Amino acid sequence: MRKEEDFSEWYGSVIEKAELRDKRYPIKGMDVWLPYGWAVMKRIDQAWREEFDATGHREVNFPLLIPETEFKKEADHVKGFESDVYWVTHGGLNPLDVKLVLRPTSETAMYPMFALWIRSHADLPLKLYQIVSTFRYETKMTRTFLRVREIHFFEAHTAHATFEDAEQQVQEDLQIHERLMRRFCLPYLTSKRPDWDKFPGASYSLGADTLLPSGRTLQIATFHQYRDNFSKVYDVKYEDPSGEHRYAHQTTDGMSERIVGAIVAVHGDEKGIVLPPEVAPVQVVIVPILEKGRQEDISRAARELFQSLQSQLRVHIDERDLRPGEKFYHWEARGVPLRVELGPKDLAKGEVVVVQRTNGEKRSLAVLGLAARLKSMLELIQVEMFARAEKAMKDSVTAIARLEDTRDGINKMSWCGREECGLAVGERTGMNVLGTPYYREAASGKCIVCGEPAKDVLYAAKAY
Amino acid sequence: MRKEEDFSEWYGSVIEKAELRDKRYPIKGMDVWLPYGWAVMKRIDQAWREEFDATGHREVNFPLLIPETEFKKEADHVKGFESDVYWVTHGGLNPLDVKLVLRPTSETAMYPMFALWIRSHADLPLKLYQIVSTFRYETKMTRTFLRVREIHFFEAHTAHATFEDAEQQVQEDLQIHERLMRRFCLPYLTSKRPDWDKFPGASYSLGADTLLPSGRTLQIATFHQYRDNFSKVYDVKYEDPSGEHRYAHQTTDGMSERIVGAIVAVHGDEKGIVLPPEVAPVQVVIVPILEKGRQEDISRAARELFQSLQSQLRVHIDERDLRPGEKFYHWEARGVPLRVELGPKDLAKGEVVVVQRTNGEKRSLAVLGLAARLKSMLELIQVEMFARAEKAMKDSVTAIARLEDTRDGINKMSWCGREECGLAVGERTGMNVLGTPYYREAASGKCIVCGEPAKDVLYAAKAY
Repeated sequence: MRKEEDFSEWYGSVIEKAELRDKRYPIKGMDVWLPYGWAVMKRIDQAWREEFDATGHREVNFPLLIPETEFKKEADHVKGFESDVYWVTHGGLNPLDVKLVLRPTSETAMYPMFALWIRSHADLPLKLYQIVSTFRYETKMTRTFLRVREIHFFEAHTAHATFEDAEQQVQEDLQIHERLMRRFCLPYLTSKRPDWDKFPGASYSLGADTLLPSGRTLQIATFHQYRDNFSKVYDVKYEDPSGEHRYAHQTTDGMSERIVGAIVAVHGDEKGIVLPPEVAPVQVVIVPILEKGRQEDISRAARELFQSLQSQLRVHIDERDLRPGEKFYHWEARGVPLRVELGPKDLAKGEVVVVQRTNGEKRSLAVLGLAARLKSMLELIQVEMFARAEKAMKDSVTAIARLEDTRDGINKMSWCGREECGLAVGERTGMNVLGTPYYREAASGKCIVCGEPAKDVLYAAKAY
Repeated sequence: MRKEEDFSEWYGSVIEKAELRDKRYPIKGMDVWLPYGWAVMKRIDQAWREEFDATGHREVNFPLLIPETEFKKEADHVKGFESDVYWVTHGGLNPLDVKLVLRPTSETAMYPMFALWIRSHADLPLKLYQIVSTFRYETKMTRTFLRVREIHFFEAHTAHATFEDAEQQVQEDLQIHERLMRRFCLPYLTSKRPDWDKFPGASYSLGADTLLPSGRTLQIATFHQYRDNFSKVYDVKYEDPSGEHRYAHQTTDGMSERIVGAIVAVHGDEKGIVLPPEVAPVQVVIVPILEKGRQEDISRAARELFQSLQSQLRVHIDERDLRPGEKFYHWEARGVPLRVELGPKDLAKGEVVVVQRTNGEKRSLAVLGLAARLKSMLELIQVEMFARAEKAMKDSVTAIARLEDTRDGINKMSWCGREECGLAVGERTGMNVLGTPYYREAASGKCIVCGEPAKDVLYAAKAY
């Protein structure tokens, strides 16, 4: 099945073939993580931890349940979430005195504790993150990784002395995601979300959107500047050096299992998923090509090769009693970047055949020095996968001058900056307004809606 | 505060001082994991993963929520849990059609999927595990790590062709925990739980109990043989080589965050917690002893030392602007096994002072070859900590011949094997019957209750 023809069906089928998730669990939108899918997710967890640990964030873990009393303190926030949270109302056979929310996100769980932890300017900045399940009572059609009810979620929460310090944090977050998304081979566009679409409780929100082959965009990370909106509600205050009490300024940074969905969608092909080497639980699979009478020699050589590569690469040897063709199919469906075949002819020459998942290219390489060759191939694949996806995304951007001209992909237009015109873009085209480019582009011409002089550039796309 | 005098207060205070958890979260029994506590927990996660991955288990991740319809299928199981599960009854503003349980354990989430995954004998054994939060609506007094409402939980679930294969799995589990508990420096007694106290739905249950300094035992791992009790309810069947359909035999293996509580309780002292080197997020902390005029030299030497140790040990350098004494206090409270002090006199001699957390012993060691020396010291500490705790536990076992003679610690008695006598032991002594020794001991004498000839040994203790 080719993904251009029926993206939705292709997407579901490659996830099933790769055994990432099983969606037959008896609650819609809550798919079981199978071992291979969970291994991919853990690689992404690890990448997040490396980047956030290296920038002075510390990992915590907050309770899942939030008392209704805390949850309802910030008015915009509760309005944004109350229609799609799960409520725990009973413990055992009895109703609870205070209902509990399954966290949809953790502001209202964390900030009452921030109020206890932060006393003086010396306690700032406070930079924490957690990797947890969050829950949304999703009433729209669910789709594995992309729109689900239990979400594997990454959330960093910070508190700072001043707005400027919080702004610096947003800059750091953007840099972190530059590095992360290179590791995931996912290009993206950073937009400042329109005011009418910012996170409930935020001063402003930034979104990172990638492009899926269906022509729709997918939000894969968000960055919110809260100013002191939450700190005023949860009383997150510090004493400054002059002894005055001030409210902290806060930010958040969020990412989710959608990253896996985006990788599947952007890089997969008719044979299955294709994993970036940084994310692949298995980077190299060794398939011994056994021939009658030579089984033992080849098995031994394959195992020796496995041993020699193991310390430098994530390598697996497939010794199952199956035909080589079945094994090729199995590992291609799972997106393993490189396959190493070792047969009697190769053995005689001291060589192996290396097959690259992204393009099917085969080459014979000497066993001597193989680890280094494989490593540089993986580095190159990593760069090429990102570059190809980035080109596809850039090529999809169309500058339009009339609302009738919107196309699949990302539409770029001029805007006067007024909310009513921004809303009109969404209403008249059926697209989602992504917002204005965070890395400012000069506006020119006239507003696509009202014809007044443009003040800004606006992006719109069909979005998941 | 000394732990022998008031164990409960001591226990709470050292957890607070070490900054493992914060129990001021507004739901009782749901404490926030602070960065250091979470780092300890992650070390334990890692140890579990290593042992279970190495024995052919694969990690999965199942949804948190279980539909009431699945949850209620196994009668004993639901009877055992229905009075202490949390119920999700509403999504957004509307009641759900089917109520959902927050998993108290995952049999009823997993086994409907096992029924889909297992078709033939070639699919067996199926050996899976997950590390997740489970929930109990605990109505008794809660206590950090030991009795909580959100539990960091480890659960392995397996399915086998025959009862004998499942028995082999229980053996493997016992061996895995032999290795794990050595890493955690926790000795334990393995008991076959009495029939009236087995896991709801199990054929039999084994429990591993360690001894806390309060004289009470704490269950730190469990192993359940389910036979085909669950597979009959959830229709987990396979086709055997002769084409017949048979029910699978199942086992589980469970462990929880109680391990952290046990480590705190067993090894801590008046200065704070003491971590086994295998579990310590920081194994060695370097404290430069700065002296006026020599700050730069010492700082540089301390950083060089840090660099040189970093690849071989989990090492931290404390460069905060605090007096050395404050730093000593800080890291002692956190149980870091070794402290390395580097001052001007040491620097001149090419030495450092190494202080061991378990006994406060100081020794001067040459910087040359330090990494190897520290590593062997850590190995020795690991062995000594286990041995000391094991001795304390063994010393606490008292053989008693009359029910009036029970003491703190573990009481060992003779038993006729009849349930009514076993229950009487619990009722008349106020102790918990732990069960019969899994590694059988010869019974002798008369039943402590009825005076009939003894058939078995019975252990009882006050338990958490």
